[in-house]
Amino acid sequence: MPYLDHAATTPMLEEAITAMSAAMAQVGNPSSLHTSGRRARRIVEESRERLAAALGARPSEVIFTSGGTESDNLAVKGIFLARRNEARAHRRVLISAIEHHAVLDSAQWLVDHEGAELVLLPVDERGTVLPAALSAAIAEDPNAVALVSVMWANNEVGTVQPIAELVAIAHAYGIPFHTDAVQAAGALPVYFAESGVDAMTVTAHKLGGPYGTGALLLGRGVACAPVLHGGGQERDVRSGTIDTPGVVGFATAAEIAVARRDASAARLAGLRDSLVAGVLEAVPDAVLNGDPVSRLPGNAHLSFPGCEGDSLLMLLDARGIECSTGSACSAGVAQASHVLLAMGADDQRARGSLRLSLGHTSTAEDVHAVIEAIGPAVERARRAGMASGGSAFAYSSPALAGMDTTGRNR
Amino acid sequence: MPYLDHAATTPMLEEAITAMSAAMAQVGNPSSLHTSGRRARRIVEESRERLAAALGARPSEVIFTSGGTESDNLAVKGIFLARRNEARAHRRVLISAIEHHAVLDSAQWLVDHEGAELVLLPVDERGTVLPAALSAAIAEDPNAVALVSVMWANNEVGTVQPIAELVAIAHAYGIPFHTDAVQAAGALPVYFAESGVDAMTVTAHKLGGPYGTGALLLGRGVACAPVLHGGGQERDVRSGTIDTPGVVGFATAAEIAVARRDASAARLAGLRDSLVAGVLEAVPDAVLNGDPVSRLPGNAHLSFPGCEGDSLLMLLDARGIECSTGSACSAGVAQASHVLLAMGADDQRARGSLRLSLGHTSTAEDVHAVIEAIGPAVERARRAGMASGGSAFAYSSPALAGMDTTGRNR
Repeated sequence: MPYLDHAATTPMLEEAITAMSAAMAQVGNPSSLHTSGRRARRIVEESRERLAAALGARPSEVIFTSGGTESDNLAVKGIFLARRNEARAHRRVLISAIEHHAVLDSAQWLVDHEGAELVLLPVDERGTVLPAALSAAIAEDPNAVALVSVMWANNEVGTVQPIAELVAIAHAYGIPFHTDAVQAAGALPVYFAESGVDAMTVTAHKLGGPYGTGALLLGRGVACAPVLHGGGQERDVRSGTIDTPGVVGFATAAEIAVARRDASAARLAGLRDSLVAGVLEAVPDAVLNGDPVSRLPGNAHLSFPGCEGDSLLMLLDARGIECSTGSACSAGVAQASHVLLAMGADDQRARGSLRLSLGHTSTAEDVHAVIEAIGPAVERARRAGMASGGSAFAYSSPALAGMDTTGRNR
Repeated sequence: MPYLDHAATTPMLEEAITAMSAAMAQVGNPSSLHTSGRRARRIVEESRERLAAALGARPSEVIFTSGGTESDNLAVKGIFLARRNEARAHRRVLISAIEHHAVLDSAQWLVDHEGAELVLLPVDERGTVLPAALSAAIAEDPNAVALVSVMWANNEVGTVQPIAELVAIAHAYGIPFHTDAVQAAGALPVYFAESGVDAMTVTAHKLGGPYGTGALLLGRGVACAPVLHGGGQERDVRSGTIDTPGVVGFATAAEIAVARRDASAARLAGLRDSLVAGVLEAVPDAVLNGDPVSRLPGNAHLSFPGCEGDSLLMLLDARGIECSTGSACSAGVAQASHVLLAMGADDQRARGSLRLSLGHTSTAEDVHAVIEAIGPAVERARRAGMASGGSAFAYSSPALAGMDTTGRNR
């Protein structure tokens, strides 16, 4: 069954499952002082070292968390609160307009709850944050900027951001820089120290590790207030019993993903380019979104004029092809992607889009299956769209019977 | 190897490992709309139903989280913020003096950051929150109370609280009531609806499930502001990709723990009573802490005059017996337990304590091993204590070589 939704989550690597299973069979809270506890602690610290090495960070810079959402919340809220504690003037939060909701909604919470001022950095039509836009936004009131947060690569359209340039601008003003590298880590050369960022979000389940485990890489000198309070594990920045099996699964997957990264990126980019070419041949008026060059190797994101993305998704699913319309975290929410709208797409184009994301299990057969299926699916989705007035999503379609579009809210 | 630290974490049940391993082998983000996503969603919703059934709650009342710490943070901060949003007057937070740090430090954060007023409810010498103490604390200014939080059973000394009476008092004033039932769930008859509490913290790894997965049971009508923002999973109260393998492991373990609860409680209480009797015979001046009757079936917590608890712990560990001095979350922190101090113990008694906690793998042999070892260990710890002036913990003891007491802060 062609699975083209690796950006939502990618199958776990065998090695990560094996490492986790071994850890699950052993007892021991890594905070306990006895032999079992110390053994668990050793596994945690070795995992920390392995993850740090894979991502070019120091072990002491790894704060284990429950995943990308928590890491983003911790970075955005924690750094903001610490910076405002340094100086009341630090009230502006600069983030790109195409951030994941974990960053966007954390920043919005700072507005609603902490009196922050939110500045959304615009992107161009390829989804790139232009360095000039960051410079201009900072220049409006440099001393008031608490932090900048721009994702390394976008989770929907795959555009890779000019992180080095953006970091240099922020640092020229002494402003801390956070990046959500959830999609980039394991896919691109992402090295913490080298990148210069002050904080970086990564998560395990996007690179072959388990759900429920992530990390915030946080420079030793970067002040960050905790979001979760309690036992004081993880440098007192994050509390909660450390998930020993989870972190060993994360480290194992990250190590392998990074070791295979360059070969995998070349292979996936090749498959992705065939996929895009084949789809554009089958549906000549389809449009590739995002940057054609500076993009994640496994990401193809296309708009199909006159289609509802959700219809297309379900029609492909009925043919055994799994993909998404955008972020899985927003799936089932009937609203146009804020990412595409920020890139200048109109509502219809934004709603008529599909994200086809490749990963470590993807094959040429998967690509072939999509190319075969996409033409008829688009045709049918267009007929359905016209029948229902060209905009509303026809939930009565047989392909959708039994589908639970609001399942996440049950 | 006798493991008597089940209160810190208990070995995973085979069935939970099996269920998780099966889920780990399947791909699918439960928020995705395609077939794999819907299959993952089904596993999540079935797990939600099973967990709810085991704990006497409705499925819609289960908010999955990353564990007890997050659930406590969410309940204390989230309910406080929602209540204060209803009325600015709601600024008092009433919690017992013996709460876990996840509740205590969340409440303290509300003081430092949100202008809350913290009221610590005193406990008697058995560690019980007396209903009269709650009544008195509320009566000081009933309209100002935002919430009450009292744990179901204490994690250190095992005292079970009179939750029903406490809830009735809070509810007479219309005040929401949260309880941290991390230690109680699976050990005692803990049923959400029946208990009347508005919010209840539970976690998987204390009852045979995995680390990194917990839940907040939250009544449908109870307003609670999110702590983690993002994709809006979990009723918009908690964001973050749901950990499908984790929640199925949690539900599986909870179902089994509850099914076996009464038989297990009787068996553990019997073992525990033999343990206490045997230890008191070997060390006649030892003292049992907590309530002799109303306590967790697997908990024995004793003070050994003239000993340092950490010395004792390491001496027993050298004999292959694993236990703790108190909460694993505070292990390695050289300060007396706030729980024992609140119960009126002096610093020396508080520091000279051991928690021996039994669980599903415990046997009569484990108990026997402790009874055999405790006398000589206490004798040696007393000599060490006297040699080092009777108070400082001698880190130079051979038993402690290589021990990392501050590992959690690395």
